[in-house]
Amino acid sequence: MVGVGLIGGSIGLAARERLPGARVKGYDRDPAAIEAALERGAVDEGCSSPERAAHDVDICFVCCPVGQLGTEVGAVLGAGGDSAVTDVGSAKRAVVDSVRAAQLPESDRSRFIGGHPLAGAEAAGVRHARADLFEGATWYLTPGERTSGVHYDRLYRVISGLGARPTAITPETHDRLMATVSHLPHVLANVLVGQAARALLEEEQHLPATGPSFRDATRVAGSNPAVWRDIFVANRETIGAELQAYAAELERLIALLRDGDASAVEQWIEGARADRQRLLELELAGGAVSELRVSVPNRPGIVAQIAVALGEGGVNIVDMALYPAADMQSGAIALWVAGAESAERAMELIAGIGYPATVVANGDES
Amino acid sequence: MVGVGLIGGSIGLAARERLPGARVKGYDRDPAAIEAALERGAVDEGCSSPERAAHDVDICFVCCPVGQLGTEVGAVLGAGGDSAVTDVGSAKRAVVDSVRAAQLPESDRSRFIGGHPLAGAEAAGVRHARADLFEGATWYLTPGERTSGVHYDRLYRVISGLGARPTAITPETHDRLMATVSHLPHVLANVLVGQAARALLEEEQHLPATGPSFRDATRVAGSNPAVWRDIFVANRETIGAELQAYAAELERLIALLRDGDASAVEQWIEGARADRQRLLELELAGGAVSELRVSVPNRPGIVAQIAVALGEGGVNIVDMALYPAADMQSGAIALWVAGAESAERAMELIAGIGYPATVVANGDES
Repeated sequence: MVGVGLIGGSIGLAARERLPGARVKGYDRDPAAIEAALERGAVDEGCSSPERAAHDVDICFVCCPVGQLGTEVGAVLGAGGDSAVTDVGSAKRAVVDSVRAAQLPESDRSRFIGGHPLAGAEAAGVRHARADLFEGATWYLTPGERTSGVHYDRLYRVISGLGARPTAITPETHDRLMATVSHLPHVLANVLVGQAARALLEEEQHLPATGPSFRDATRVAGSNPAVWRDIFVANRETIGAELQAYAAELERLIALLRDGDASAVEQWIEGARADRQRLLELELAGGAVSELRVSVPNRPGIVAQIAVALGEGGVNIVDMALYPAADMQSGAIALWVAGAESAERAMELIAGIGYPATVVANGDES
Repeated sequence: MVGVGLIGGSIGLAARERLPGARVKGYDRDPAAIEAALERGAVDEGCSSPERAAHDVDICFVCCPVGQLGTEVGAVLGAGGDSAVTDVGSAKRAVVDSVRAAQLPESDRSRFIGGHPLAGAEAAGVRHARADLFEGATWYLTPGERTSGVHYDRLYRVISGLGARPTAITPETHDRLMATVSHLPHVLANVLVGQAARALLEEEQHLPATGPSFRDATRVAGSNPAVWRDIFVANRETIGAELQAYAAELERLIALLRDGDASAVEQWIEGARADRQRLLELELAGGAVSELRVSVPNRPGIVAQIAVALGEGGVNIVDMALYPAADMQSGAIALWVAGAESAERAMELIAGIGYPATVVANGDES
């Protein structure tokens, strides 16, 4: 393991718990992280360099920040040996290209396979590592034409052993998917908070207590600048292209608005409605999602009361958002549950404790 | 009342409950809505036309869809009388301009004051109307140079009587604020779902189970097309200008990415981080918001358990989001609470029931 944070630490824990006879060596630029990993039982042995951690192992996982991937992967491959080498970064083309271009024997370059587990990073650091972090998670791998089959096979089997679902993908497709569903939302949130802050300053106004859309759209704004700098830079070509396409679509709407073409605008929104429903259904593998709105007083215990009622009634909440009203004394809870039947049941349960609830087709504020 | 849906109905309920001697007449294009408003006690009397509803009243609230505002307000003013006439639409310039341009005596035009209560429309229809809907809510009013002071004063006092805080604003400033914090988020969500749907189709991939950013950013995509068509069209000049500014900022980032300037990209994200913190603090009138992440199994009752613990411990949850992991068996709960002290208390309470929790500065996924 080169880098023993949340992901590296979780791989170590999962390997030691699930793979019979597994032994884990770990290096990190931060010596305290190695200590913590030893204490957590995420590694068997701490190492003083990436090369030592990668020496004489079956697989070397490089789990360092995205901006250091090229360097660390190059160092590990350059030290020779027969290990399969992989990484866990959320941009793949940059690291794959850097290995392709590295001054290394083909036999070393062919040992590298890019990787990216889609595992929740709810909090950073080995302290939050969990042996079950990868259970059922998609783990993208980017084998190429020159990838050594024996090393790929070894990596594939170990990743399956960690509980994940290894999924082969090209670096280009991976980076486009991530650009669209993760990197773009971060860019859009960043631009929106900036624009809102500017408008409020120029108009000398406070943030109006409108509906939830602004809060939802800006929740990730300004997320970890060092991490996202690396991701944006590593995936800059694809993000740039997706941003161009995004800006072009904004221009299309600007033209519709300039023409004042109400029915074209409505069609444009209808298209988004259909797209969103399609994506939600894809995400939940075929199950439609229903949204409920409940009007409630805004006080400690209210979320509990509703969640208890639904929990006891066997309804699982897929997503939830709280929308306090301007006075912070009242508000609404939006709940998403899987399937129309669950929605009906949830309505009954919530009505039973005295709050008015409605099923809505889609978030609505105006 | 011209239009007795959620807002019109709530004004009726609030007026009858809070204003001594108030009598409410109501018209709606949908006769069933008038019936429902009578049953709910939101109006004292149903009327067969806007003119009759507005005849011989102190104030006429026009609460119809944004696209019909010009027509209905014009009809009510044209019927004469001495009532103050206002509306509740979420775009103000279009209706104010249409009254200015109307072929009416100045004495009638001066009786109109544009209005917009920022009240939660968690579900449409008079069935969900509440007498306390406007309690503490900002209620924008757009008096102009030619507005009759006596009518403005009358409206101001009644709106205060409904529990709201009347706040004077120019139509231009109102429309820019709404464009930035409400209309833009809807446009951005619509464009993003479309782009993601296209990318997934072209790449023949399923939606990857990445972090919460995509779901948050697209939650309002495709919201009520008829309602949002009207708003987009009514506020099209301002939305168009804000979209141009937004696209220009995207171009600025595209250029930074093209140059591969990592430190400029990091600065750009740092700017968004500062903007978001500023906006959150403004929203809560000075109180900083802390975010906690809790790793949990994903099963009915889990939200309840945590919410009960916090509720009993006196910690109020400002916002909440659930992030199921790929396997839908585990996941994370993000909680936002006001103030560092509440965050510490929440950490203790959650640790007390056995879940690992961390305070994070900002949503983080990669």
